[in-house]
Amino acid sequence: MAHFPNTFGFTGTLRPLRLQGDIHDVEIEGEVPADLDGAFHRVHPDNQFAPKFEDDQFFNGDGMVSMFRVNDGKVDFRQRYAQTDKWKLENKAGKSLFGMYRNHLTDDPSVEGQIRGTANTNVLVHAGKLYAMKEDSPCLLMDPNTLETHGYTDFGGRIDSKTFCAHPKIDPATGNMCAFSYMSKGPMTHDMSYMEISPTGELLFEIPFQNKYLCMMHDFGVTEDYAVFSVMPLLTSMERLEKRLPYFGFDTTQPVWLAVLPRQAGATAADMRWFKAPSNCFVGHVMNAFNEGTRIYFDHPVAANNSFPFFPDIHGAPFDPIAGLGYLSRWSVDMASNNDEFESIEKLTNLADEFPRIDDRYATQAYRHGWMLVMDREKPYEGPGGPFVGMINSLAHIDLATGSTKSWWPGPQCGIQEPCFVPKSADAPEGEGYVIALVDNHVTNYSELCFFDAQHVDEGPIARAKLPVRIRQGLHGNWSTGAQLAGI
Amino acid sequence: MAHFPNTFGFTGTLRPLRLQGDIHDVEIEGEVPADLDGAFHRVHPDNQFAPKFEDDQFFNGDGMVSMFRVNDGKVDFRQRYAQTDKWKLENKAGKSLFGMYRNHLTDDPSVEGQIRGTANTNVLVHAGKLYAMKEDSPCLLMDPNTLETHGYTDFGGRIDSKTFCAHPKIDPATGNMCAFSYMSKGPMTHDMSYMEISPTGELLFEIPFQNKYLCMMHDFGVTEDYAVFSVMPLLTSMERLEKRLPYFGFDTTQPVWLAVLPRQAGATAADMRWFKAPSNCFVGHVMNAFNEGTRIYFDHPVAANNSFPFFPDIHGAPFDPIAGLGYLSRWSVDMASNNDEFESIEKLTNLADEFPRIDDRYATQAYRHGWMLVMDREKPYEGPGGPFVGMINSLAHIDLATGSTKSWWPGPQCGIQEPCFVPKSADAPEGEGYVIALVDNHVTNYSELCFFDAQHVDEGPIARAKLPVRIRQGLHGNWSTGAQLAGI
Repeated sequence: MAHFPNTFGFTGTLRPLRLQGDIHDVEIEGEVPADLDGAFHRVHPDNQFAPKFEDDQFFNGDGMVSMFRVNDGKVDFRQRYAQTDKWKLENKAGKSLFGMYRNHLTDDPSVEGQIRGTANTNVLVHAGKLYAMKEDSPCLLMDPNTLETHGYTDFGGRIDSKTFCAHPKIDPATGNMCAFSYMSKGPMTHDMSYMEISPTGELLFEIPFQNKYLCMMHDFGVTEDYAVFSVMPLLTSMERLEKRLPYFGFDTTQPVWLAVLPRQAGATAADMRWFKAPSNCFVGHVMNAFNEGTRIYFDHPVAANNSFPFFPDIHGAPFDPIAGLGYLSRWSVDMASNNDEFESIEKLTNLADEFPRIDDRYATQAYRHGWMLVMDREKPYEGPGGPFVGMINSLAHIDLATGSTKSWWPGPQCGIQEPCFVPKSADAPEGEGYVIALVDNHVTNYSELCFFDAQHVDEGPIARAKLPVRIRQGLHGNWSTGAQLAGI
Repeated sequence: MAHFPNTFGFTGTLRPLRLQGDIHDVEIEGEVPADLDGAFHRVHPDNQFAPKFEDDQFFNGDGMVSMFRVNDGKVDFRQRYAQTDKWKLENKAGKSLFGMYRNHLTDDPSVEGQIRGTANTNVLVHAGKLYAMKEDSPCLLMDPNTLETHGYTDFGGRIDSKTFCAHPKIDPATGNMCAFSYMSKGPMTHDMSYMEISPTGELLFEIPFQNKYLCMMHDFGVTEDYAVFSVMPLLTSMERLEKRLPYFGFDTTQPVWLAVLPRQAGATAADMRWFKAPSNCFVGHVMNAFNEGTRIYFDHPVAANNSFPFFPDIHGAPFDPIAGLGYLSRWSVDMASNNDEFESIEKLTNLADEFPRIDDRYATQAYRHGWMLVMDREKPYEGPGGPFVGMINSLAHIDLATGSTKSWWPGPQCGIQEPCFVPKSADAPEGEGYVIALVDNHVTNYSELCFFDAQHVDEGPIARAKLPVRIRQGLHGNWSTGAQLAGI
């Protein structure tokens, strides 16, 4: 019986949705640009059944994929569960069998050895399939139009890594999907790999290497010539699992690294360089990375201390919400240097920010425009539960050529989810197009997919696709074109 | 493009939902009785596309059927459009083609002669099918489990009437569905009929007769021996359609009738008796009817004047919300009398009420227990738009043996939809069981299917199936057993 816990993670703004459905021709306010043809896929954690543990992480919910199919000024909405192996086993049992977030010691014995993934972190169309990803497990493939689940892929038996990251990048020059894996040989292994997948979905190469310590490896950067990994001590261990502690804990005493690997089929771990950050810090999602010769630039929000109250300090320090604020920063290292020091660190904005995005046609390249969620209000801590919920409350555009920002606040009692840039046309200049983002009203419990002029987000939405439901706080999503959806 | 009008009928509490979907194992508060096995089907109007006319009636929305499948203390939710011929034609066109409520003169020429029905008024499982009904058109059949639409039925070519009422009754003695038709030979015809359909779905007989005037014939009563029709002057005419007036208008100068027809295959219009009410009045839904020999009892809310502000006075009198309040009343006539006068009129409660229901095992029979929505609060007129919305605000049980009532108020900013009684078991005493009703919160926009002990509704719900959406204000619905759903 679906008795959900009356805890923070399952009530109020974080109430599960669990609704699979369709709305044809969603009610529109304003005018959706008639030149837009494609789909915005995004995903949120959404427990199929009440969790086995009341204090389980939000991140442990089953992946619920939403699709907004945009064409001819109209928007169709579809939402389906990613039917992972876990989802299917639990669906059959009619209850949760898998236990706490990434803690297999808490599972029902009947599911021992089964893939625990939830496919709840990111969705991206590549090679005619929707890749639904969770970093602790293989990549799940779905139909990008029907959202029917095909199942986990091992890339025709070619992949060695048992896990697949949730933040692959598409190299606009080659069309390759650039991805990585951590804990590649199973839970608590230091093994990682870097891989590229062709535009037709073939695994081209896979380069194994070892990480410095057992930590969350959530995102990374890809430049024309290098794969770049930010490595911070958000650590885990078997001991934590045995003690049923939160899976990760932050360690302020360990160094932070930027690891760089050449993007070449023949490269090995021996070619990897490890650069040491000048001090401990907390790194967030990657906006973009690029290289000029051997000099590498890596842009991401960086916080002075842990940003995740739900993965507390490993030495017991209380969570510091101010020190946990990240600010978009540019780190630079040089592969030609003969030491492990950074070349430079540049803070690119004074606005606390996260969920950075770019015009993906400029991924791996020098670029000018970024979009992100920022805190530009006076009272950022109105919401319960620390900064993860209710804190990031405006959509911003940053012009990296000038450092100037424009932002739009959705209003009180509203949240805004990760933005996504959509170019006006395939050959439009960088940043010319639209930004789309879900705006959630936590009083009316309605969500709206808002469409902005990407260069004028401060002017507010030019159109809103108004849903009669509130879509649960999600993680990541991406735009695909009509041609991609048609498998062309 | 789905630009809905910013009018009363399409915003706020009446905002369309348009969502087809499923929620498996809905979140529950309290405990759903483990002995309940069956489904509650109900329906609401829900425009597939924005209406052709901004001031169109709420009643013109496409039928959206909800199913709450209850078993083993769990509730599964499913919602689908009734795919009427109108729905299919408009779906193909991507826009509304049919015009105003029951006014074919306002339709797109491409749909001339097509069935205009929306199947949005009532849903009832009979003979293994879900009958989805709208009184201006034939009966639509759907699958009671999947909610897939089979299409309109002409009962194997046997039925003469072109329309089918939305308030058939199941005779518990025979298992027959007792139904009627009005405007049976097409719009603006005085033709009506009474018919019975066997437990296996065969049309057994159809008795044609003529009505007194062209009026709404929404509900009726069935006793062991008679079919009983309340006939009030909520009139229509071709002239109203040509002038694009609301389809119906109320005429206080015309008499109100109770017409009685023997329930026999050989009966004809000549056997029908017309009894004249002592004064003009407005009659609502029928709670129940029964006869003791030739004496007939007919229970329904009766108002001093028009209850429907959206179908205004035909002579221009302003709407009077107090006079429009109905009170459950028992009318009695005697087939053995030699005049057209009523035997008695008894007001059964001082609570304004509508949406009366009974333990359906006692349909056609003398009975004791009724449930209905009542106004027992001091300020019933808080909502906009007159009494139809926001006025009926408590669930009540009435014991007709004592006249006593018990009621439960869902709280401020909440609405409650038509209740439905479910017996505790097939052989439980009358009224022993549960009452279920949707409670809609118009601030959070969440609906809950509430389960009450039928004898103690004043104690509030014993369980709530909590939806993450608000189900649009609906009309009618019914319970079916697990055996009925399995086609047994």
